[in-house]
Amino acid sequence: MNLIYLLDLCAVAVCAITATLEARRRELDLFGVIVVAVISGIGGGTVRDILLGRLPVYWIHDPVYVVVGTVAGTLTFFLGRYLKLPKNFFLIPDAVGLALFTVIGTSIALKLDAPWLIASLMGVITGVFGGVIRDILCNEVPLIFRTDIYATASLAGALLLIALDHFDVSQNIAMLWAMASIIAIRLAAIRWHIHLPHLRSDI
Amino acid sequence: MNLIYLLDLCAVAVCAITATLEARRRELDLFGVIVVAVISGIGGGTVRDILLGRLPVYWIHDPVYVVVGTVAGTLTFFLGRYLKLPKNFFLIPDAVGLALFTVIGTSIALKLDAPWLIASLMGVITGVFGGVIRDILCNEVPLIFRTDIYATASLAGALLLIALDHFDVSQNIAMLWAMASIIAIRLAAIRWHIHLPHLRSDI
Amino acid sequence: MNLIYLLDLCAVAVCAITATLEARRRELDLFGVIVVAVISGIGGGTVRDILLGRLPVYWIHDPVYVVVGTVAGTLTFFLGRYLKLPKNFFLIPDAVGLALFTVIGTSIALKLDAPWLIASLMGVITGVFGGVIRDILCNEVPLIFRTDIYATASLAGALLLIALDHFDVSQNIAMLWAMASIIAIRLAAIRWHIHLPHLRSDI
Repeated sequence: MNLIYLLDLCAVAVCAITATLEARRRELDLFGVIVVAVISGIGGGTVRDILLGRLPVYWIHDPVYVVVGTVAGTLTFFLGRYLKLPKNFFLIPDAVGLALFTVIGTSIALKLDAPWLIASLMGVITGVFGGVIRDILCNEVPLIFRTDIYATASLAGALLLIALDHFDVSQNIAMLWAMASIIAIRLAAIRWHIHLPHLRSDI
Repeated sequence: MNLIYLLDLCAVAVCAITATLEARRRELDLFGVIVVAVISGIGGGTVRDILLGRLPVYWIHDPVYVVVGTVAGTLTFFLGRYLKLPKNFFLIPDAVGLALFTVIGTSIALKLDAPWLIASLMGVITGVFGGVIRDILCNEVPLIFRTDIYATASLAGALLLIALDHFDVSQNIAMLWAMASIIAIRLAAIRWHIHLPHLRSDI
Repeated sequence: MNLIYLLDLCAVAVCAITATLEARRRELDLFGVIVVAVISGIGGGTVRDILLGRLPVYWIHDPVYVVVGTVAGTLTFFLGRYLKLPKNFFLIPDAVGLALFTVIGTSIALKLDAPWLIASLMGVITGVFGGVIRDILCNEVPLIFRTDIYATASLAGALLLIALDHFDVSQNIAMLWAMASIIAIRLAAIRWHIHLPHLRSDI
């Protein structure tokens, strides 16, 4: 469990860092950046907890999550202008974070006896809703509604986890396979520009 | 109760269909469309359940709602370009859905001993908040804040339901009258272009 | 307690009034204005209650809050065009409202044994999230993410309250000092144009 907790905090940090870099295009002050960074990191799990009735939400009694998001956002805010990172530097950490959030969210919902469809949905919400709230706060149509296979990778991994769980595969193995499939689908989609069909706006 | 459940699912489907048609103007991919469609269908009841503390929210243990929203959104996504429906095709189903969501939301709040004012508000929230969240996700000022009598029809019906309930009219009769009044007010407002006063922006 | 309750209602009214004046620039009808006004007044406390699991949220069984917000919004809607108030008329009531919401939110979280960092966060959320939701509904990047010391004043006051509480200062004295510090910081920031650092968008 300790490894998952550590990875979870790393995923929060990665979310906060990418959110801060995204927020650059907006005229946000330090406070705004930190709020957007923290919400990106913990927003998905918060929405999941509220919908499932796991209240108070998970970070109320464990402030480490908020601290990690705040520190990551603040450091990126001040160091971001000096660091010239390659554009795709965060693609792999981001895919790992998506995978981790998804399997954690799905597992939690399964433990609460949610039906499998809802459990997979909770995995997707945990994985992607931090970014959705970030984009709403920044006044943009959420990126994941417009862009390549992201939530779809999360959904596929959540369904795989549920299937493996159904056939009594041990939990650790199931989580590893689910995470590996999410990361693989996500990176493959980026590498070969795989998209879902778009609504044609000319109709 | 079975009839109400069936009508409720129909209302979710209508919401999902109209949301998908609305989403056309945006560059959403299939995933984005389905999310917007499902949220339009179940968002109002979800917000009501969270505010009232009825957790987990109603669709967690009954995935049929999510399935209906997903199927309706997906079919509309793929068939929408071939079907040329008259522009006002959904006005009546939409009014029926508004009426149904409103009376369901109001009834639930009354059963939890909410004061009448709050119960009517829960009816309105159940009726209109799916659309509000849809518009926020699509990065627009929610339509109901700008447009003709919509939430007002919902509020009038909710208050009628509460009044009839107060005078011990049987629940089924009260719900029918309330729904009829919402549909009548909504359609009358559309037919004769009745609006609430607007803020003049030139002041 | 009665004085705090009364001040709380006043703060709701002030929020509703300023939200209505803000909403002028948007083409909202009467219903939209009232919704935006009420949400500005009670939104912060609502988000706090949901995150902390204090459900149903505080205004469900005390409709006075909704009534005050509705009346304040409606009166401002109709009288706003005749009243020519000086532009900074609401700066002081607004600062008092921020201070009051903050100390109420922080106190509630402390009573629920939240860690001090989370308690201060709940104070800030209570103080500023009504305005955040208002701006999201009006399709704008929330003002507090872009503007001068506002949430920062709230945070400073919340931390002071927690420190005084820790050293067993009596609650009333602690709340007064915390409120005074929030009001002082807020007004000083306005008077001398003190800002947090902004992200430079040219990097």
